[in-house]
Amino acid sequence: MLCSHKQPAQIEEILTQYAAIGRACLLTRLAPEQVESLSKSWRARLDYDSISRTASFPETRPPDDSPQVAIISGGSSDASVCGEAARTLAFYGVASNRIEDVGVAGLWRLMDRLDEIRQHPIVIVVAGMEGALFSVVGGLVGSFIIAVPTSVGYGVSRAGKLSLMSALASCAPGLVVVNIDNGYGAACAALRVLRLRDAALAGFAGGRDEVR
Amino acid sequence: MLCSHKQPAQIEEILTQYAAIGRACLLTRLAPEQVESLSKSWRARLDYDSISRTASFPETRPPDDSPQVAIISGGSSDASVCGEAARTLAFYGVASNRIEDVGVAGLWRLMDRLDEIRQHPIVIVVAGMEGALFSVVGGLVGSFIIAVPTSVGYGVSRAGKLSLMSALASCAPGLVVVNIDNGYGAACAALRVLRLRDAALAGFAGGRDEVR
Amino acid sequence: MLCSHKQPAQIEEILTQYAAIGRACLLTRLAPEQVESLSKSWRARLDYDSISRTASFPETRPPDDSPQVAIISGGSSDASVCGEAARTLAFYGVASNRIEDVGVAGLWRLMDRLDEIRQHPIVIVVAGMEGALFSVVGGLVGSFIIAVPTSVGYGVSRAGKLSLMSALASCAPGLVVVNIDNGYGAACAALRVLRLRDAALAGFAGGRDEVR
Amino acid sequence: MLCSHKQPAQIEEILTQYAAIGRACLLTRLAPEQVESLSKSWRARLDYDSISRTASFPETRPPDDSPQVAIISGGSSDASVCGEAARTLAFYGVASNRIEDVGVAGLWRLMDRLDEIRQHPIVIVVAGMEGALFSVVGGLVGSFIIAVPTSVGYGVSRAGKLSLMSALASCAPGLVVVNIDNGYGAACAALRVLRLRDAALAGFAGGRDEVR
Amino acid sequence: MLCSHKQPAQIEEILTQYAAIGRACLLTRLAPEQVESLSKSWRARLDYDSISRTASFPETRPPDDSPQVAIISGGSSDASVCGEAARTLAFYGVASNRIEDVGVAGLWRLMDRLDEIRQHPIVIVVAGMEGALFSVVGGLVGSFIIAVPTSVGYGVSRAGKLSLMSALASCAPGLVVVNIDNGYGAACAALRVLRLRDAALAGFAGGRDEVR
Amino acid sequence: MLCSHKQPAQIEEILTQYAAIGRACLLTRLAPEQVESLSKSWRARLDYDSISRTASFPETRPPDDSPQVAIISGGSSDASVCGEAARTLAFYGVASNRIEDVGVAGLWRLMDRLDEIRQHPIVIVVAGMEGALFSVVGGLVGSFIIAVPTSVGYGVSRAGKLSLMSALASCAPGLVVVNIDNGYGAACAALRVLRLRDAALAGFAGGRDEVR
Amino acid sequence: MLCSHKQPAQIEEILTQYAAIGRACLLTRLAPEQVESLSKSWRARLDYDSISRTASFPETRPPDDSPQVAIISGGSSDASVCGEAARTLAFYGVASNRIEDVGVAGLWRLMDRLDEIRQHPIVIVVAGMEGALFSVVGGLVGSFIIAVPTSVGYGVSRAGKLSLMSALASCAPGLVVVNIDNGYGAACAALRVLRLRDAALAGFAGGRDEVR
Amino acid sequence: MLCSHKQPAQIEEILTQYAAIGRACLLTRLAPEQVESLSKSWRARLDYDSISRTASFPETRPPDDSPQVAIISGGSSDASVCGEAARTLAFYGVASNRIEDVGVAGLWRLMDRLDEIRQHPIVIVVAGMEGALFSVVGGLVGSFIIAVPTSVGYGVSRAGKLSLMSALASCAPGLVVVNIDNGYGAACAALRVLRLRDAALAGFAGGRDEVR
Repeated sequence: MLCSHKQPAQIEEILTQYAAIGRACLLTRLAPEQVESLSKSWRARLDYDSISRTASFPETRPPDDSPQVAIISGGSSDASVCGEAARTLAFYGVASNRIEDVGVAGLWRLMDRLDEIRQHPIVIVVAGMEGALFSVVGGLVGSFIIAVPTSVGYGVSRAGKLSLMSALASCAPGLVVVNIDNGYGAACAALRVLRLRDAALAGFAGGRDEVR
Repeated sequence: MLCSHKQPAQIEEILTQYAAIGRACLLTRLAPEQVESLSKSWRARLDYDSISRTASFPETRPPDDSPQVAIISGGSSDASVCGEAARTLAFYGVASNRIEDVGVAGLWRLMDRLDEIRQHPIVIVVAGMEGALFSVVGGLVGSFIIAVPTSVGYGVSRAGKLSLMSALASCAPGLVVVNIDNGYGAACAALRVLRLRDAALAGFAGGRDEVR
Repeated sequence: MLCSHKQPAQIEEILTQYAAIGRACLLTRLAPEQVESLSKSWRARLDYDSISRTASFPETRPPDDSPQVAIISGGSSDASVCGEAARTLAFYGVASNRIEDVGVAGLWRLMDRLDEIRQHPIVIVVAGMEGALFSVVGGLVGSFIIAVPTSVGYGVSRAGKLSLMSALASCAPGLVVVNIDNGYGAACAALRVLRLRDAALAGFAGGRDEVR
Repeated sequence: MLCSHKQPAQIEEILTQYAAIGRACLLTRLAPEQVESLSKSWRARLDYDSISRTASFPETRPPDDSPQVAIISGGSSDASVCGEAARTLAFYGVASNRIEDVGVAGLWRLMDRLDEIRQHPIVIVVAGMEGALFSVVGGLVGSFIIAVPTSVGYGVSRAGKLSLMSALASCAPGLVVVNIDNGYGAACAALRVLRLRDAALAGFAGGRDEVR
Repeated sequence: MLCSHKQPAQIEEILTQYAAIGRACLLTRLAPEQVESLSKSWRARLDYDSISRTASFPETRPPDDSPQVAIISGGSSDASVCGEAARTLAFYGVASNRIEDVGVAGLWRLMDRLDEIRQHPIVIVVAGMEGALFSVVGGLVGSFIIAVPTSVGYGVSRAGKLSLMSALASCAPGLVVVNIDNGYGAACAALRVLRLRDAALAGFAGGRDEVR
Repeated sequence: MLCSHKQPAQIEEILTQYAAIGRACLLTRLAPEQVESLSKSWRARLDYDSISRTASFPETRPPDDSPQVAIISGGSSDASVCGEAARTLAFYGVASNRIEDVGVAGLWRLMDRLDEIRQHPIVIVVAGMEGALFSVVGGLVGSFIIAVPTSVGYGVSRAGKLSLMSALASCAPGLVVVNIDNGYGAACAALRVLRLRDAALAGFAGGRDEVR
Repeated sequence: MLCSHKQPAQIEEILTQYAAIGRACLLTRLAPEQVESLSKSWRARLDYDSISRTASFPETRPPDDSPQVAIISGGSSDASVCGEAARTLAFYGVASNRIEDVGVAGLWRLMDRLDEIRQHPIVIVVAGMEGALFSVVGGLVGSFIIAVPTSVGYGVSRAGKLSLMSALASCAPGLVVVNIDNGYGAACAALRVLRLRDAALAGFAGGRDEVR
Repeated sequence: MLCSHKQPAQIEEILTQYAAIGRACLLTRLAPEQVESLSKSWRARLDYDSISRTASFPETRPPDDSPQVAIISGGSSDASVCGEAARTLAFYGVASNRIEDVGVAGLWRLMDRLDEIRQHPIVIVVAGMEGALFSVVGGLVGSFIIAVPTSVGYGVSRAGKLSLMSALASCAPGLVVVNIDNGYGAACAALRVLRLRDAALAGFAGGRDEVR
């Protein structure tokens, strides 16, 4: 459930419907103020994470499989988007590995962890500013790579559009892109791919129920 | 090899290098005028396709596997981009199935072929104009979906930017996007995914050698 | 009366003029804060609706005719714009039928209600994000269709411009468009059309008096 | 049939299909060069009009009803778009009245013909440059008004975007807008409205068959 | 003195310098919050006008000449910009005549006052939204006309850019334009023109001292 | 008569009308190709100037008054726009003085001619690229100044938009601006101002007849 | 350390790491609210400057060399960016000379100080609005010049983009540009240049450690 | 002399002036068509290079110093801009070293030549597409670095704007930027820096004489 334009009453009503039919529910873009406005009982039942602004009901247990997805980012300011992707994957039972703060301004940080990154079949790359990280990783890593531009930056890179365009124009072949700050979308793309190998990902129904 | 800014002499020189080491080569964005300017012997060795503006050396044999990828498009004007994707897949031995002219202005055309589309693990959606096809397919088909916006349109949809933005903003979760008219990139993304299941796709090295 | 840039004193002054000559008045884009600042007596005489941010004086009675206009929307976040259109129609004595939350991410919701929608001579379609709903409805419904893009969305769809452009570039022929979030304008367009059949819509004078 | 991106062979193939089932066909955005490339027999059967770049098969007879639609324009450079609208209406048997070169730089030209314009239930306004004509006509005429921005202009008004935005932002209530240079779309919108009064417009099926 | 980015202490320091040399000073873009923060003595010496956000020191006496400049506007929301122009003219001893709320949505309001407007050698036209007023006045009035676009509007006309572009692209010859919301600049342009006739406007030194 | 979108036949028709009523006519934006297509007799009667792309009928005699208007430009690439302004002024009997190639990259060139420039009551400044010349002249010269941005430049200054914006944002008070490359408009603005002093400029009727 | 998106806890953690290894640290884009939230002990150790929003640890001693860098600006609103540049230079032991408020609207202010400016091998020019200062200084001063556009302005110059584009399009050869408001970047560029002459600038390691 | 908007006659006239006073002249943006139109004698005296579109008079002798400047580029399509920079440097007697085709899609190509690049005090980086090369080099090389974005690319990277913005937003501190495709400007910036060390670069007078 995308919560960004919803009133607390609307959110509780939808949660109650999920609970009635015994289904789990992932909440994204849930602002702290919105959580504050929920009833005490619902607040107690949600495992809210304020950095990624996500919650789930019932509580998401950490998957114990080996991580299928690496989530790497340029800087610590991208942590919110990384979190949204990781929490969405976990909700559907997929473990991920976070490798943050490896932006190209200090390329050696990325080089040091290259072998580790390459061991994951899917790599989600999260970057703002000028988005140079997408091309560099795309040229060095042969896994399936999803680029998530973020709205981190100032001046000409404001609002993520520059990073988005860099991802699209990247000369690394086979790189795919999702909308700005859309960690949830990147995780859903990873799930669509993983389902090709593992039919047991039955809990993920294309994500249709979670939207709006 | 991306040919769009290359001189005929440059193209021949690179082809000769490939031939010398016995490697196959895929040429994209190769204009008919460029082909005309090549030497007679090289022209004879390339299986040029003028609609997709691609060629390969040696000739690409049609893969005889069952198609793993469906390539669907909104209208016949998108045929060039569909062809680039299909020819790239074939070059790496992957069969595809083209289902064209199923745009949303006549939604029944898409609905009639929905079951057929759903049988492919990967679906490449090619659309220009307002790009409504991306969201409609994304909501109806659970496969892994790659959106390729095209520069077909006029007025406000000029040059594909509107279609691109529609793909990025689509409410269908897990849809991924490549650059405008980038059929080659969509095929490479499909190859990166298929390699997760099939290690034998060894001929595809992340596409690195083909770029520039 | 468009209230968005007006001081409470200005609003009261204009209302008093309307009352003096015995004319009804529709107020649009009236923020709750503005209502709070009105005098107690005027507040009592206005039937303010906080979702659509409209009010009228005297109170608008619900029209008892069969609905001539269907108002359909992609999601619950578009409710404010739908309300502005419905309230404007009601002010001029025209009944409408609201069919909300039928966006294309779950196309079956729209398909289930298609017969119902087709029974209205005029259909107002309200959608934000990528605006795919406009083309889908335009291809399936032969009524006169007015598209209202909304400023719902984030990332590349911010502020409604993407949805607006999708409406304009739609391949569905004969679709017409009004400004972003302009439910009032869509209702006025419907009134201009209905007046072609029904000269009794005398209360609607082209909308001239209500502007500014 | 929108011809702008089609090869002559494709056009002839579609025309032959129409002829085989005995249906009439309207061709829009058909460039003189495309006509030149058609076979001699098809050229003889099409009544091509080079200003509006439209043709029909069989020849369209001028409707003999009284005009339901006024088509007014700012200047003689808008003639191509006016022609596309008029020819589309005529193809479906609807007469129109053209009142051109009444732009606001010489407002008296418009004022002199105001009574004539007001006698039409539907008015299509065609204007480029800064698009001031839309607001002026919208404020003076109570008919149903469709604005068609055109790509006439230079400097900041290049490519019709300014005129489009002026139409959308117009303070005249109930004005509706179609895409830049889209005379065909304006005519289809008029047809959708006229069908509300006259069920005999059976030849117009929402325009679906003509698209792409 | 343009006050928009200045601290109260900076403003007082400059005012003190003006007072020391016995010069008058006009303050523009002076927010109410800034006035509140000035010392009590300076507040008493400034004749602040909160609508136009201007002040002067010493108090500006209303000029008693016949008005040389007409200031006309589309709607009451433009009052702030009209006021800035009128107060700047008055500061330099030039009387003006304000004719507001004559926008083109109700063209008769403008037509009723046309003779009055034509009697002024200089006409400042202030309009937001789609800016159609510029072309209409430019075509009807032979005086020297200065267009001031304003940031009034919503949707596509946000922030005045549409109105600005309409002014620049206007087909009325000899219309000149200043920046968005720049009533001060329009007044200075009028002063530069009036000085051609009247060398006694010695108090206006090209405006240089007032800037920044 | 603005010739840019007109056919030769249209141009000759309008010229014949002017000749029939014994009126002079100024032609702007008249391309050499258009002149070539005119009939031999009309070509002989027009005094075409290929740099400014203007012509007049009958031939314009150079005014023998002292120049009222200085036309200064940044570089020799702006000569076309300067010429359009000068020829328009001459057509209405106003002499001008051209001071070209005084751009700010070599500021001494401007400084050397400052006294000469200051002697003109009206100064038209023509500049492309980054448009710095507008602010510099605006700060140094107290005359009435009209800025004409030109489409000279490459990279980020393409098509004149940067120069236009620099003119509008200039901190020199009272600078006014016309559309990109609009030398004709600048001359008309000068004429509107000069008419304030000199009622004998009867030949200039606000320019209305020349437009479109 | 760029502080703009960092939490106080993150800032303190990084400062503690620097202190542990005995290294100095420069903090940029540090808002007053962030300083307020730091622990008392850290607040005491930082020499915070609220105008430039910079701090350093340990306290930066003013360099006693003769200034190598002139920092000149158009107006007092640019003081924050000038300060960021000056404080960054001082942190690395380089003295600078600030020459502010010499914008081109009053060109004589710049001319009066030209000889002084020319004595510095490196000149940093800081300007917002239309950015005319870059070209003027670039044409008059032969030193190495770095342009820093600022986000000072309103209307069309909002957010610094106009000033940035003016810097890039400047006709003064050899002018280089950094991002909007990036005083820190300009100082680093100066340091990279000075290091060419003076290998002793060992404290400046390309700036890598300070980023993010 | 920037030749892009100049007629052959203008070019010859300026060349003759240079020859008369015995000065050398560098011609940039000189198209092959322009060279064809020059007189035979001038063609013989110019050493035209068609890739960089530059010429000089008299012929430029290759400098025999050790190279002070490295010019590195992402791909062979950037050769024209690299050539313009190298030829400008050579004209003023400065040797450069070209290291091309080291784009980040194959990062090892850059890594292999890193030591060689680091030996130059000044590095000019030339890149189009998404411009990731700027950040990567900026993070790895401590020399003074000048970024030159190029107009190589398609789709969202059209016309170099994306590459330009990536350069400006780069997180590598102290990177400076010149206009799109401006190899000449980058060389002039290098010359301004080199002059700080070497007063003998007297032939380079800030470049002022070469402009326009």
